[in-house]
Amino acid sequence: MNCEIITIGDELLIGQVVDTNSAWMAQRLNERGIVLKQITSVHDDAEHITAALDEAFNRADIVLTTGGLGPTKDDITKKVLCDYFHTRLVPSKQVEEHVRKLYKNRPDVLNRLTATQWLVPENCTVLTNRVGSAPIMAFTLNAKRLISLPGVPHEMQVGMQEQVLPWLTEQLPDMAQTIAHRTLLVSGIAESSLAIILEKWENALPDCLHLAYLPKDGTIRLRLSLYEDAIDVLDEQWNQLKELVQDYLVVDEDKPLELVLGQMLLAKGQTISTAESCTGGRLAALLNAHSGSSAWYWGSVVAYDNSVKQNVLGVPADVLETHGAVSEETVRYMVEGVRNLAHTDYAIATSGIAGPTGGTPDKPVGTVWMAWATPDGTYAECFHLGSGREQITTRACTKALLGMIQILRKFG
Amino acid sequence: MNCEIITIGDELLIGQVVDTNSAWMAQRLNERGIVLKQITSVHDDAEHITAALDEAFNRADIVLTTGGLGPTKDDITKKVLCDYFHTRLVPSKQVEEHVRKLYKNRPDVLNRLTATQWLVPENCTVLTNRVGSAPIMAFTLNAKRLISLPGVPHEMQVGMQEQVLPWLTEQLPDMAQTIAHRTLLVSGIAESSLAIILEKWENALPDCLHLAYLPKDGTIRLRLSLYEDAIDVLDEQWNQLKELVQDYLVVDEDKPLELVLGQMLLAKGQTISTAESCTGGRLAALLNAHSGSSAWYWGSVVAYDNSVKQNVLGVPADVLETHGAVSEETVRYMVEGVRNLAHTDYAIATSGIAGPTGGTPDKPVGTVWMAWATPDGTYAECFHLGSGREQITTRACTKALLGMIQILRKFG
Repeated sequence: MNCEIITIGDELLIGQVVDTNSAWMAQRLNERGIVLKQITSVHDDAEHITAALDEAFNRADIVLTTGGLGPTKDDITKKVLCDYFHTRLVPSKQVEEHVRKLYKNRPDVLNRLTATQWLVPENCTVLTNRVGSAPIMAFTLNAKRLISLPGVPHEMQVGMQEQVLPWLTEQLPDMAQTIAHRTLLVSGIAESSLAIILEKWENALPDCLHLAYLPKDGTIRLRLSLYEDAIDVLDEQWNQLKELVQDYLVVDEDKPLELVLGQMLLAKGQTISTAESCTGGRLAALLNAHSGSSAWYWGSVVAYDNSVKQNVLGVPADVLETHGAVSEETVRYMVEGVRNLAHTDYAIATSGIAGPTGGTPDKPVGTVWMAWATPDGTYAECFHLGSGREQITTRACTKALLGMIQILRKFG
Repeated sequence: MNCEIITIGDELLIGQVVDTNSAWMAQRLNERGIVLKQITSVHDDAEHITAALDEAFNRADIVLTTGGLGPTKDDITKKVLCDYFHTRLVPSKQVEEHVRKLYKNRPDVLNRLTATQWLVPENCTVLTNRVGSAPIMAFTLNAKRLISLPGVPHEMQVGMQEQVLPWLTEQLPDMAQTIAHRTLLVSGIAESSLAIILEKWENALPDCLHLAYLPKDGTIRLRLSLYEDAIDVLDEQWNQLKELVQDYLVVDEDKPLELVLGQMLLAKGQTISTAESCTGGRLAALLNAHSGSSAWYWGSVVAYDNSVKQNVLGVPADVLETHGAVSEETVRYMVEGVRNLAHTDYAIATSGIAGPTGGTPDKPVGTVWMAWATPDGTYAECFHLGSGREQITTRACTKALLGMIQILRKFG
């Protein structure tokens, strides 16, 4: 069954907010066997929303909207849906009780504007927004369904999991079709060279399978997708694909590198710490993003300033002076310093020039030194990661994690 | 003049990739006085792309597409555009020379698939993609323009700045209209209560102005937008708005809190460091994300494990044992520990339970202790930041930065 998402809000179309909701929703829909056909972002404008709804219903059976459900004047989604479904707003006891309970310790919030949150379109089904005041509203139009969700990511996520997906499954028991995605990650080869290796196999792929190349930060994800009831075919081709790319294979799942590393460490009962200069905490944030990481990740020293490299990590002043902060010598002292401080089995250190300033002819912007400390010795390598502060930092994190995974595989 | 963005790629519609390109492009378009009417994400499917192009041209004068320009079989945008504009692919000397130069040190990449990158539609204008091999292609259709950009964010960004925006300005010199957005940030008040304070003023706003409420992480951004030639009107109402919200005003620009803090410190010639437990490096990554931050941000200790809190930050073992890691006592030791280590004027520390596990009846998930150290003493506060690991971490970063800004304003 086809679905579309319409995200509503001027902030999306002036670039004040990045739409992270759609990708999250798309994953959940795919898990349930629902194909997401299109995502459309429109302004808080009645005519524009109405036109987008018409177009979406022409293509899809399920339309999900996000945004425009706040109690303020700029939020018009509820009113537009009322007009669209030829109905009117009526008070809902269910929503009123929920909102009163939600704000029981904040009487100032229970004002006359908040009270508009418990007005809902007469012919909709109210699905409770457990963590917010805007009701989730589900409409039925012949065989089609529309669900309007809040735009606040946490409210949307809780609502989707607890209410929307179960409701859809109940309403449309036959909506699920086979959808399967298998993704692996390779590194150390260019996209075009990889495609040449895979060419013969790819050209012979059965029509039901689609191969996609997703290059990013010097790695490539390869995804094999199936939209038909033919898992056996997928399994067979997936195994062939893994064999064809085995020399470059990092991991045969769509799993962030920090989780791959974490699971390797967890399996061995070992731990890691980091010392970051140019990645500036980004590596720590990645390693900490997943629940359970405290079992194997013990911490980081973000040594942005040389005084921190010296006083906390113990990089000798003369090393910093002679070789500079971006050097093999410094990064080796950093990595050993943090490993000793945190008493971990492994450690990673980064020091580089993220730009846009700070580059020299000798060490241009994009130069990044990296070191990996292990119980059996320390490895260091220099990378040139292109231009653009954001790109350099992201690529450096990828290289740091990849390097550690490869060292653990080889020597761990 | 109206513009639309079409982002092309199955990965967007299965949620494997978040579309960050559109928001970045939207900002640049608005700066140039171009209204972005709609963003549409479609599959790598010829029929679907063609339909989206038709619909976009019905509404807009300029259509920008991203994605589908790689050398592999799944990338079909170039072929679809050829059909759409009734033309054929021809070799481009300009693109060939550029690609050969780009890969001059990587002969393995100059293979027959890469060579397809210098085939371009005969009737397009090629705009150089300085940092990648996929050419940017501009098409003219009567008074309308279509530009196809690569989906890799860094390539898209460099291409937009250096090629696409200058080309559009030259081609359509009258495209710009007045667009002005003014945004301020308030905290310490609920959205509905704020709307009641502003109600009378908001209802009397001239038609040319639009007010938007953007609540996030316990703060609210208020945006006043103008799409007509009436800057004087905007100025006047903007001043009134600032006066109305003055008791809650944090900053009267759309600027990330870490930059607000950084500029305050820079102006005073002062520095800051951080000690993070539950925010796990996220605060460091925020503070380091902007060029120039090394002048005022000296580093962070991400003390995820108690041993790091003890050995690096000097939190006494008996404090950790008696009060726990998430306590006023611990967070005070953490903040003073990092301030002394890094020799900075100020410091921030966080320690909390981000969940989903680790909560107790006494300290449920979402409990976060925070401390701010200053030359004149240390402040600490406990927050309850709701549920959801991602939401708790993000809110904690916001509270940490807000707290420091407010302390600096009051006592700094």
